[in-house]
Amino acid sequence: MSALPAPQVLAFDVFGTVVDWHSGIACEVRALCPGVDGGAFALAWRAGYQPTMQRVRSGELGWTRLDELHRLILDSILDDFGLADLSEVQTQHLNKAWHRLDPWSDVVAGLQQLKTRHTICTLSNGNIGLLTNMAKRAGLPWDCVLSAEVFRAYKPDPATYLGVARVFDLAPQQVMLVAAHHEDLAAARACGLQTAYIERPFEFGRAQPKDVSPVAANTRHARDFLALADQLGC
Amino acid sequence: MSALPAPQVLAFDVFGTVVDWHSGIACEVRALCPGVDGGAFALAWRAGYQPTMQRVRSGELGWTRLDELHRLILDSILDDFGLADLSEVQTQHLNKAWHRLDPWSDVVAGLQQLKTRHTICTLSNGNIGLLTNMAKRAGLPWDCVLSAEVFRAYKPDPATYLGVARVFDLAPQQVMLVAAHHEDLAAARACGLQTAYIERPFEFGRAQPKDVSPVAANTRHARDFLALADQLGC
Repeated sequence: MSALPAPQVLAFDVFGTVVDWHSGIACEVRALCPGVDGGAFALAWRAGYQPTMQRVRSGELGWTRLDELHRLILDSILDDFGLADLSEVQTQHLNKAWHRLDPWSDVVAGLQQLKTRHTICTLSNGNIGLLTNMAKRAGLPWDCVLSAEVFRAYKPDPATYLGVARVFDLAPQQVMLVAAHHEDLAAARACGLQTAYIERPFEFGRAQPKDVSPVAANTRHARDFLALADQLGC
Repeated sequence: MSALPAPQVLAFDVFGTVVDWHSGIACEVRALCPGVDGGAFALAWRAGYQPTMQRVRSGELGWTRLDELHRLILDSILDDFGLADLSEVQTQHLNKAWHRLDPWSDVVAGLQQLKTRHTICTLSNGNIGLLTNMAKRAGLPWDCVLSAEVFRAYKPDPATYLGVARVFDLAPQQVMLVAAHHEDLAAARACGLQTAYIERPFEFGRAQPKDVSPVAANTRHARDFLALADQLGC
């Protein structure tokens, strides 16, 4: 699709792109409270994600890690799902369900292929501890865990995308953001990064498949990580 | 040696503890300029390490990554070794010799054992890109690369040791610093971390073995990473 040089670093969005947060959260909620609609709970929790991060971006909240933001949202929805009686220990455990998400089925093999020719790192709004715990549990073979926490800024702040290039002493176009979200990719492109869109049609559950049509501006468009590895000659 | 609970996270000093900087730098210098005393060059370069970082700690220099500090020192010693004629490309390449250091022979197997029961991360004054490039080349299986660059403070600043605990939402005593340097370990201990001393008698070359006697205040004292893994039951 492009005559750009091969990127040296591939930086991956994580929630939705690498791991299936909808199924993972739904499953943990159902296990904890069998009567609750786990899928609806997952969607409600995730729906608070952008607005709550916006409170940090706007300066209303000082720098706050995603674990804490997840807890703020969780506390605000428990009552709606009849879960106001969860103990503090149960609530803390549930809040860390984001550390225990499973990857899509192509991810581990795809990353192993991609890392043979590229440095692979996360670029997620998740905090470093969350991403490290997730990687250790799921066997995600990152060369490096980068996070909003390193740059003290949440995507789509340019400090995050340009921060990856700076960490590796590279020009922005030597870095490729890999994500299943066009807004994230557009913000990276505005900073000069290459971009790869990954189709994750069931990010919001099988009941509501999402549009995974290509956007021509992306450097690459791939069905999954194995297809991306093929395209990049790994 | 101690009734403390097993640490959840092991944070490793890198230069001298994980990799053999003396041999690595000496070898690269000799390859580049066959007439130069590589070992003396390595010692001179490393001798500038603490004083140059002190310029950042004191505030004389703003936050500066180790790659840049290494370059400042390198520029100041090239002439002493008759290397003032190196091209800019050669100098840049030599400056990144710190990215290409080899680990001591026990390291990769030891880390693989240790990571079966602990989260293993770096806690080095090296910058993230340096540590990531080194790990990828040498096969160091870190769960996470932490660096002075993440905390914008150089060891022995407490922000670095306490920063590791904070990243993983742990009490300081749930983290163990692993290092071949008693000053680093003492500073970590003052922050409440557990500490493990590793014997690296030839850190400064075979010609000048260093004293590797135990200090009773450390939680553990081990000949190498494999011995530490045995002690920790990995």
